[in-house]
Amino acid sequence: MDDPLPPTIEWRGDRVRLVDQRQLPDRLAFVDCATVDELCHAIATMAVRGAPALGVAAAMGVALAATTGEDVNGAAERLRATRPTAVNLARGLERALAAADPVAEARLMAEEDVDRNRRLGAEGAALLAGLVRGDDGGQGDTPDAAGRGGTLRVFTHCNAGGLACAGYGTAVGVLRAAHEAGMRLHVWVGETRPLLQGARLTAWELGQLGIPCTVVVDSMAGCLMAGGEVDCVVVGADRVAANGDTANKVGTYALGVLARHHHLPFFVAAPSSTIDLSSATGAAIPIERRTGDEVACLGGRRLVPPGAAVDNRAFDVTPARLVTAVVTEAGVARPPYGRGLARLVAVAGHHSR
Amino acid sequence: MDDPLPPTIEWRGDRVRLVDQRQLPDRLAFVDCATVDELCHAIATMAVRGAPALGVAAAMGVALAATTGEDVNGAAERLRATRPTAVNLARGLERALAAADPVAEARLMAEEDVDRNRRLGAEGAALLAGLVRGDDGGQGDTPDAAGRGGTLRVFTHCNAGGLACAGYGTAVGVLRAAHEAGMRLHVWVGETRPLLQGARLTAWELGQLGIPCTVVVDSMAGCLMAGGEVDCVVVGADRVAANGDTANKVGTYALGVLARHHHLPFFVAAPSSTIDLSSATGAAIPIERRTGDEVACLGGRRLVPPGAAVDNRAFDVTPARLVTAVVTEAGVARPPYGRGLARLVAVAGHHSR
Repeated sequence: MDDPLPPTIEWRGDRVRLVDQRQLPDRLAFVDCATVDELCHAIATMAVRGAPALGVAAAMGVALAATTGEDVNGAAERLRATRPTAVNLARGLERALAAADPVAEARLMAEEDVDRNRRLGAEGAALLAGLVRGDDGGQGDTPDAAGRGGTLRVFTHCNAGGLACAGYGTAVGVLRAAHEAGMRLHVWVGETRPLLQGARLTAWELGQLGIPCTVVVDSMAGCLMAGGEVDCVVVGADRVAANGDTANKVGTYALGVLARHHHLPFFVAAPSSTIDLSSATGAAIPIERRTGDEVACLGGRRLVPPGAAVDNRAFDVTPARLVTAVVTEAGVARPPYGRGLARLVAVAGHHSR
Repeated sequence: MDDPLPPTIEWRGDRVRLVDQRQLPDRLAFVDCATVDELCHAIATMAVRGAPALGVAAAMGVALAATTGEDVNGAAERLRATRPTAVNLARGLERALAAADPVAEARLMAEEDVDRNRRLGAEGAALLAGLVRGDDGGQGDTPDAAGRGGTLRVFTHCNAGGLACAGYGTAVGVLRAAHEAGMRLHVWVGETRPLLQGARLTAWELGQLGIPCTVVVDSMAGCLMAGGEVDCVVVGADRVAANGDTANKVGTYALGVLARHHHLPFFVAAPSSTIDLSSATGAAIPIERRTGDEVACLGGRRLVPPGAAVDNRAFDVTPARLVTAVVTEAGVARPPYGRGLARLVAVAGHHSR
């Protein structure tokens, strides 16, 4: 089947081509990066974002350095400094640095990412099919889990779609796989302030895929759940600690608390490369703070008065106790996560090498 | 003391002068409404908003009709249709319609509103002072309630300030009274999508009042609470049902769930006129749905792709079980609310007539 979405990131001859996500949904444009500095700028300004995509971008950055004759270790350090939270970025650097042919390795990583996300999607779609059948997602109390009229109503946050990966997507990949398997879905998309990746990117992807969705302000998730209008939450992750604590876009934690309060399953969809066994708990995950201008300035107008401070944390940590299951390409982990996540990482390593 | 804030709404000769809240914080500008239609337009487009302010605006609308010779009952119906959730609007219409001199009655209502809010502020400031002393706000478990270094850290949502009233404010009035009494405060202001009344209006008011604040995206409230950075939540209300269920700006319910999850007191500050004993529970409160363009369009740019639906509910209902106390000018009600709220309404009616 033709993919209705373009590759988010690809190696083109001697440069890296990225979908310019700052310009969506107005237009589908691309940025070509011929140097590591151009790529670092594209990452820092969110032309490309999303944990799996950052892993591939980092590897391609090392590949760029290798082909242009730049010092690859210096390039890796500049790339590493762009975004701290997603573990995939450091992973991508390490793989490309260790490879005899960084270009071939980076391209392989992009291919593997899409393949992995398809497998992840199938695993997640099976979980959602279980909800429609009336399985309880492990919460023990989901009377409305079959959805209204056979439609499963999913809440998602930010963009864990093809645009956050080399392609296909993680959380959106689960929805895509379920849709391709014939399941009827309705997706509530939290707009995801401040940069609106939900409204701009996820709603665009779902439209391209033909999956019905409705955009809401992030703070509407609670009353949708209270009104019985949500059957489950599916989100991505930037890093999953060894104990299952999950760093993801700010606001994810509040969704976890709300889902628990309403007895709804809360699924984290992430490739095994997002699991960081060296982070024992969420406390070990660095949380990126970004400029307050992302919050204060909208459409060229500053909407926060001079003198008022702005605190703009890009991510938060959802503790493992609020996570119903972590869905990976190697299978599904459920609480307690310690053993299950380690097993998935081992299985995935076995498959991919 | 000179008030650092202008009157939100006042009767000027033969017209109603409003602070144009759409233009804040860029500039403090005013709208003069000489006809009921102009005032209806100002209300519908949010030049003036906030439950107590809408009550005064509605009364002044009847006064406008009376002075211009327009049919006052027809005018009242057009005003009533502008915004359904705030009970104060209907109350303001009824009082002005019943008055021999609607102009005098509307002006009296504005004066009463400010006076009531000052008394409400004093009641709320006493509650906050209790938290600093180590009282538990009724939650039974607030180890951090004294704040860091003696500073009480309050989360608020939307604008329940002087701009939402004839003056002084309800939730912000509580903060103002506490500040005027010498309490050290730091206020987390949720920006309050879609119309950003927190970022634009509350942060502006707090700046005028000299109260330190930090603006955050609405979805950051959860991780601030998880990190022990919030001591309590104080919000306003558009309508409080007889059982204590509280309608307020969308997102308030999620804050209620989050506050309960983190064992934090959750205070509703509202004049007794916001208590609607004829609404038995929150289910009886109509929730206004507004155009999706408020969510989709930012700074002239449409950020939600064509084809994606938008659901824009202006309010949600926080059930009484999540509300620690309702603070009014006539005193504080605590659970169970049935008797306490009725008593406050009776006391307030006795005082104000």
